[in-house]
Amino acid sequence: MHFKDANAEPMAPSIRIAVVAPGTRIDEALAERLQKFAADTFLDRAPEIVVHPQCFLSAGHFAGDDAARLRAFVEAANDPSFDAVWFARGGYGACRIAEAALAELNGASRLKTYLGYSDNGAILGGLYARGYANIVHGPIPVDLTRAGGEAAVKRALAWLIDRAPESLELGAMFDGKHAAFNITVLQSILGTSLEPDLSGHVLMLEDVGEYLYRLDRALFAITSSANVRSVKGIKLGRISDIPENDKPFGATEEEIARYWCAKAGIVYLDRADIGHDVENKVVPFGALKR
Amino acid sequence: MHFKDANAEPMAPSIRIAVVAPGTRIDEALAERLQKFAADTFLDRAPEIVVHPQCFLSAGHFAGDDAARLRAFVEAANDPSFDAVWFARGGYGACRIAEAALAELNGASRLKTYLGYSDNGAILGGLYARGYANIVHGPIPVDLTRAGGEAAVKRALAWLIDRAPESLELGAMFDGKHAAFNITVLQSILGTSLEPDLSGHVLMLEDVGEYLYRLDRALFAITSSANVRSVKGIKLGRISDIPENDKPFGATEEEIARYWCAKAGIVYLDRADIGHDVENKVVPFGALKR
Repeated sequence: MHFKDANAEPMAPSIRIAVVAPGTRIDEALAERLQKFAADTFLDRAPEIVVHPQCFLSAGHFAGDDAARLRAFVEAANDPSFDAVWFARGGYGACRIAEAALAELNGASRLKTYLGYSDNGAILGGLYARGYANIVHGPIPVDLTRAGGEAAVKRALAWLIDRAPESLELGAMFDGKHAAFNITVLQSILGTSLEPDLSGHVLMLEDVGEYLYRLDRALFAITSSANVRSVKGIKLGRISDIPENDKPFGATEEEIARYWCAKAGIVYLDRADIGHDVENKVVPFGALKR
Repeated sequence: MHFKDANAEPMAPSIRIAVVAPGTRIDEALAERLQKFAADTFLDRAPEIVVHPQCFLSAGHFAGDDAARLRAFVEAANDPSFDAVWFARGGYGACRIAEAALAELNGASRLKTYLGYSDNGAILGGLYARGYANIVHGPIPVDLTRAGGEAAVKRALAWLIDRAPESLELGAMFDGKHAAFNITVLQSILGTSLEPDLSGHVLMLEDVGEYLYRLDRALFAITSSANVRSVKGIKLGRISDIPENDKPFGATEEEIARYWCAKAGIVYLDRADIGHDVENKVVPFGALKR
């Protein structure tokens, strides 16, 4: 039988993480599962994860209307007590609030880490374009719902808590600047104020659920951009769940990437270990801080 | 019993039209049906329609490989004996050949009319960007395969042959400059050399087979463009065959268009009579020539 030690302080969290949902919603059960998983996995290094109630709202497609999603993101970003803002899931919606939200951010917002991928890339791109130092492409809470998703979420948390090198995409460990995006999302922010300067970066690209002809068209648009043509090279992440078209496209996703890189005079640098799956690794934007 | 009049000249065609397929293929039966329909419908004003054999090729997704599609388009455009180039169908592929093809065009190519829509917009946009005077958004041969498609194809031919005013989208009959595009295709050419100057134009936009969240994202990208923000206004054509998503979007296509126009400071000018259907009207780019 154990007695409570009256002298013990409540264990201080390693870091404080705010979870917001700029696109689509999650449910309360996932939030609880996330908090329990983090506590059980990281023990004395466990973070405090504060899931903003906005994550549970619903307004048509979105986790609350534009005003609610914007407000939650700005609150989390501007609150100096949080070390990180973590996007609960993707699912379209970030671009609707990104520009207005970024215009409201304060000095404290620059000191924290922002972690997400997929649709979240609209905000990550906009933050990076505004000189934010700790922008990270990697797993998010909703990945817990994938089979084996605990490994992905642990990878993201280990990066947020301890900058664990084993969380990193291997290529991102080497010298040089990196950025990572969903292809469809990157295409949608080109030419907008959310588009960051990609010159000299290794650009990692992934996508999910797109017909190959759509991938081809998106890579036409992306590789036509002068900004993208200034990258050090492109690495192709995983292109998963490609729907079957009424006629086969006639080229693989890698052949498509090589085709457009060759046309645009961009170096194709092989594959990247990112994608909409549990193997998705962490890619900090810019040069790796050691 | 009729005897052949030995003195009769073979009837001269009203105009000569070259049909090429920069995206996907058509079959020979459609070409024959098109030629017979044009002859039967326009009688003494019937055009000669020359369907390039490239239209029947197949290479994966496309009507022949890039080289074959580029060659056919350039041959047709550069041949001074043709009055018009008509795109057989859409279906993705024009952007793969557009820039290289346009670089090969000669002076004769500037004297003819180019007619198409959907994926063809990548070439139409590029031609208009290069100052071509007769670029037209309107029905194409494959529309014959729609129920009631004869009316659409007749409308296109009546424009090509006689500049028939009854073929026109009503708004395009009034003063001012116009342009019309498929939304997804316009998004893909923004920032490329295929993007025309749209300042002062009424911009008509249509799409087919896209989820509303994709439409929303595309309109974010399009209305973020400084070029698009210089238009006189946007008119929304038909958005047809919208797939049902796992969650309803929560806004109609018109509400989406109004939302992004309002955000971008673009005047929303109501609906346009264009779309992927048999009612699709003819929209000549630029100011209407009378």
